Amino acid sequence: MVPKRQSYRNLKSLGEAQDIFFSRFRDLLAATESIPVRAACGRQLVHAVKAVRSVPAYNASAVDGVAVRAASTFAAFQETPASLAAGTEAVPVNTGNPLPEGMDAVVMIEKVERLPHPSGDRYEVREAVYPWQHVRKMGEDIVRGEIILPARHVVRPYDQGALLAAGVNAVEVFRKPRVLVIPTGGEVVPPEEAPDPVPPGKILEVNGQMLVSLAAECGAECVLNRPVRDDLGTIKDSILGGVASGYDVVMTIAGSSAGSEDYTPAAFAELGELLVHGVTVMPGKPTLLAAVQGRPVVGIPGYPVSAAVSFREFVRPLLFQLQGRTAPEHPVVGAVVGRKIPSKPGVEEHVRVILGRVGGKVVAMPLGGGAGMLTSLVRADGILRIPATVSGLGEGEAAPVELLTSEKDLDGRLLVLGSHDLTIDLLASAVQEATEGRVTISSSNVGSMGGLLAVGKGVAHFAGSHLLDTDTGDYNRSWIRKHLPDADVALVTLVHRHQGLITPKGNPKGIAGVCDLVRPDVSLVNRQAGSGTRILLDYELGKAGIDAAAVAGYRNEEYTHMGVAMAVTSGRADVGMGIAAAAQALDLGFIPVARERYDLVIPTPLLDDPRIVLLLDIIRSDAFKAQVLALGGYEVGETGKIQLT
Amino acid sequence: MVPKRQSYRNLKSLGEAQDIFFSRFRDLLAATESIPVRAACGRQLVHAVKAVRSVPAYNASAVDGVAVRAASTFAAFQETPASLAAGTEAVPVNTGNPLPEGMDAVVMIEKVERLPHPSGDRYEVREAVYPWQHVRKMGEDIVRGEIILPARHVVRPYDQGALLAAGVNAVEVFRKPRVLVIPTGGEVVPPEEAPDPVPPGKILEVNGQMLVSLAAECGAECVLNRPVRDDLGTIKDSILGGVASGYDVVMTIAGSSAGSEDYTPAAFAELGELLVHGVTVMPGKPTLLAAVQGRPVVGIPGYPVSAAVSFREFVRPLLFQLQGRTAPEHPVVGAVVGRKIPSKPGVEEHVRVILGRVGGKVVAMPLGGGAGMLTSLVRADGILRIPATVSGLGEGEAAPVELLTSEKDLDGRLLVLGSHDLTIDLLASAVQEATEGRVTISSSNVGSMGGLLAVGKGVAHFAGSHLLDTDTGDYNRSWIRKHLPDADVALVTLVHRHQGLITPKGNPKGIAGVCDLVRPDVSLVNRQAGSGTRILLDYELGKAGIDAAAVAGYRNEEYTHMGVAMAVTSGRADVGMGIAAAAQALDLGFIPVARERYDLVIPTPLLDDPRIVLLLDIIRSDAFKAQVLALGGYEVGETGKIQLT
Repeated sequence: MVPKRQSYRNLKSLGEAQDIFFSRFRDLLAATESIPVRAACGRQLVHAVKAVRSVPAYNASAVDGVAVRAASTFAAFQETPASLAAGTEAVPVNTGNPLPEGMDAVVMIEKVERLPHPSGDRYEVREAVYPWQHVRKMGEDIVRGEIILPARHVVRPYDQGALLAAGVNAVEVFRKPRVLVIPTGGEVVPPEEAPDPVPPGKILEVNGQMLVSLAAECGAECVLNRPVRDDLGTIKDSILGGVASGYDVVMTIAGSSAGSEDYTPAAFAELGELLVHGVTVMPGKPTLLAAVQGRPVVGIPGYPVSAAVSFREFVRPLLFQLQGRTAPEHPVVGAVVGRKIPSKPGVEEHVRVILGRVGGKVVAMPLGGGAGMLTSLVRADGILRIPATVSGLGEGEAAPVELLTSEKDLDGRLLVLGSHDLTIDLLASAVQEATEGRVTISSSNVGSMGGLLAVGKGVAHFAGSHLLDTDTGDYNRSWIRKHLPDADVALVTLVHRHQGLITPKGNPKGIAGVCDLVRPDVSLVNRQAGSGTRILLDYELGKAGIDAAAVAGYRNEEYTHMGVAMAVTSGRADVGMGIAAAAQALDLGFIPVARERYDLVIPTPLLDDPRIVLLLDIIRSDAFKAQVLALGGYEVGETGKIQLT
Repeated sequence: MVPKRQSYRNLKSLGEAQDIFFSRFRDLLAATESIPVRAACGRQLVHAVKAVRSVPAYNASAVDGVAVRAASTFAAFQETPASLAAGTEAVPVNTGNPLPEGMDAVVMIEKVERLPHPSGDRYEVREAVYPWQHVRKMGEDIVRGEIILPARHVVRPYDQGALLAAGVNAVEVFRKPRVLVIPTGGEVVPPEEAPDPVPPGKILEVNGQMLVSLAAECGAECVLNRPVRDDLGTIKDSILGGVASGYDVVMTIAGSSAGSEDYTPAAFAELGELLVHGVTVMPGKPTLLAAVQGRPVVGIPGYPVSAAVSFREFVRPLLFQLQGRTAPEHPVVGAVVGRKIPSKPGVEEHVRVILGRVGGKVVAMPLGGGAGMLTSLVRADGILRIPATVSGLGEGEAAPVELLTSEKDLDGRLLVLGSHDLTIDLLASAVQEATEGRVTISSSNVGSMGGLLAVGKGVAHFAGSHLLDTDTGDYNRSWIRKHLPDADVALVTLVHRHQGLITPKGNPKGIAGVCDLVRPDVSLVNRQAGSGTRILLDYELGKAGIDAAAVAGYRNEEYTHMGVAMAVTSGRADVGMGIAAAAQALDLGFIPVARERYDLVIPTPLLDDPRIVLLLDIIRSDAFKAQVLALGGYEVGETGKIQLT
């Protein structure tokens, strides 16, 4: 196979592509159907609905009391009650009872007393009522013939009550758009059918489920096809089959780019009209938009983040449009960029960010990783759009962010930057569990130094740090004095942990210690500059008199302990410095090098913040410590202790 | 039956009642269940979830290109390409393909050229790559053993993708709480089974469906029982049956007050512990909260608005609590009260309001009507809470309003006050249809004068008005000059319409005209003071030399034309002044009295507002005029014409 680059056939900007696509299908509406009101919650009315019955259906008592003719009470007062014959002049009624013939008002039960009388009981009425007082008048809520709900209204629970009360038992609504999702590619397999480990050359097909659920959130009914082979005929047949079966929208997944095995562009062009091939948005560029027999057909890119962008920008608005609605706008919050974000001019970039309200402003920290990083979608709190006319955003720049969460949720979100440690993930889960989701942690691994500086700049609530003072053997204090001389921060010890050299299981290359890192047959995976682990390794290399330039793979960097362990697992490297827990998690070899303290660096004023108070309670709890110990390679003797700075 | 007032057994403030109820069931959690990830969207995880597989599962190409050993490209430049043997030194790969054994980087297809060569094809590589460049490294997205989602996380579509990719095909979630709703009362019947008209003494049971849908919105599965008879034994048996069948929550509807036929308080007390009987909140006072065999049982009041308040304040938070979650807070907007709202001190009042963003502020106008008015729930945009310590809010006071809609929706909402006319409802529906819901109208009938003053005070976008100048026979102009001397407003004619005396069908009392209103056997239903129709009637009475005091029923007031027509239909009055369309809608008699102009009073600056521009386009459309004419009693010859003021 000779890979051969074709070019995008019809590259458009995001706005142009949306205009072309939505205007092409402007007049396309999903079919309508009549459904029971009881099943109509969340559905969209086609027409205005008029009441068939009046509510109340008759004049009824609005209270418990006695029905009277108002005129017979006009002289009644607390001291001089009117006396009315029970059953003829004053008739007992409960709330909702029809007003007896001839009566036109009700006196509340508290204002009457029934007294026995030889010629029949009588009521003493101690209050005058005016005509129709305490009466729910026929039609006072709903009058037959009135419009009770406008066209295009989305039915809510209250509306269901009103419709049923008004004698309307069925309503005409737009049918849920029917969507077919066709994953393509010989390499993709449904995850339930894949062996473990996934054999090289096979990829789990997970975008389909994501798209099905996203479409369901837009009110569509979505069917996920089995993956189809990557050839022109099969892809064309699958699309045609979907259109012939009456699906309102067909989505294909993958093969939409311009590579040698990207058959979808040709399939779309041969079946109908290829409206757009390629959109200058990142991620999401290899998006295809087409019309096949009058139906919208969308080629969704194969990378999950690209797929998400493509769905959000094209399919979501379309699905609402098919139902005669406008997609609800995403809530937007004004944020300040916490770290420089580069972008390519000429391409609109959609950057996934985590957010936190720090010191009165909302800070947006970009999540790294390309279009293939599913976890960046999972972790993102919002999407920051960088226009095509701009080349990146600088630290401190203001920018609007579209929320993936609610703005209210931001109040409970703690933004944690700094060093990576597995116990931070444990802590995030424990906090969310203890607060029933009111307090959540969004974190980003920027290394210990990055975390310290973020706290100093007020772009993080707190940081995780384990910076060794090579003169004293202490952690963090001297670094804070040097880099944050004016900051008022507290150090709270989270854990002590064991760092060492992670090797494949059984240590096949017989690495004994840091001195072996210069061996020509040993390749290192390193951590990024500014991380505490990098500083530790450099310190250890220095102690051993080794020049970093002599270490193979020294520039091969990972951002997390798990990344290092994974590099060793996958054979990309023979050894790396990392925590014992990471080695244990992946069942790797571990040669202890140092025991270090890992602290949370918390601005002192925040120690009174109820969220931080709660966090410290959790850290100090036996349950949390037990979870930490279970990871292996940790000590909790000083966990939760506040270190003086 | 002698109605006998009992007292509330255990009256609490809203806050006290919530504390008692939620703390009583604090430790109660719905059972958990393991479900497929594919079915888990919207469900709440019990525990943190760890990855079972790493993603990617192997080192894979991130682009289309050729896999190489990075070192073999270090000397390559655009002008001096490196030449690599195809198949051994440079292996073609597509995006996602596993990196061939021995290779550690990929050169993008744009940077290579394949050339034939006698000893086998070769690739010219015009760019150096560093190790692992353009490689999706094994585990770079997800590492086996990592926490990918925290405990108590609510699964979203992206999460489903990540879980499936990480080898997690099933998750442990909280089971949906199971809720049983038991309507009580011998008088309530399911609407589908009720004859038309509803016979006196029968009431349609519609609260049940409302509660079922509201509970579903909280993630619960809800079953609606058939209505049960109003007796102690039956009610007790139904509740016990529900508890025995494993329902997590039981709600009864109605019978929760302190009247003679209110058996639920006794039923709850005899079955378990009656925690609260009566809450000082309005509507919603007759709420019952109980524990029966450790399960929460709630007595929901029978009036629909009370039922809604009760659900919102007690059941909704409970259902989330059962799932280990906190109910999302309702979004709140700061509003200005557009009209004085009275309230009783000692009771927290929940006032339904309509909202509109008028002149930079959000105006809240209270909706009238008691706890029985379902339509007030349907029409409400928000809930304004007046604390028990306060006796009402004055016009212009600032107050927070909990939104029932999204804040974004407020941007498209037009707040229309003034005279009632059926064509306003038609217009509201037409606008919503034309804009796919982007522009909506919330209206309140406050009479023509009320509308004019609201526009003058800037608490409405525009008003409907038909105020007759009895000197000139013109409409609205002189009233505006007198009451809004400084206002810059335009008059846009909506319709001409016929006003007259509405009588029962066939005019049984032989009413010939206004002069007959003084007949002792004729009882009037009037419109409220300040309405254009009241002014018209007074003018006609004056012309006929009739003293209003001599007209029976003159003080019997309704707020809408349909209200007047309904009073005649139901026999509460013999005659009333109103529009021909109202008479026609209810098939009543009509004696023409006047032809009048009904204008929209619009601040001139708003004529450029895109929403108003669109509104005027609709008013002037043939489709709208045809709908108006179909109502009967309208003329559209000047519809859409701007009148000079």
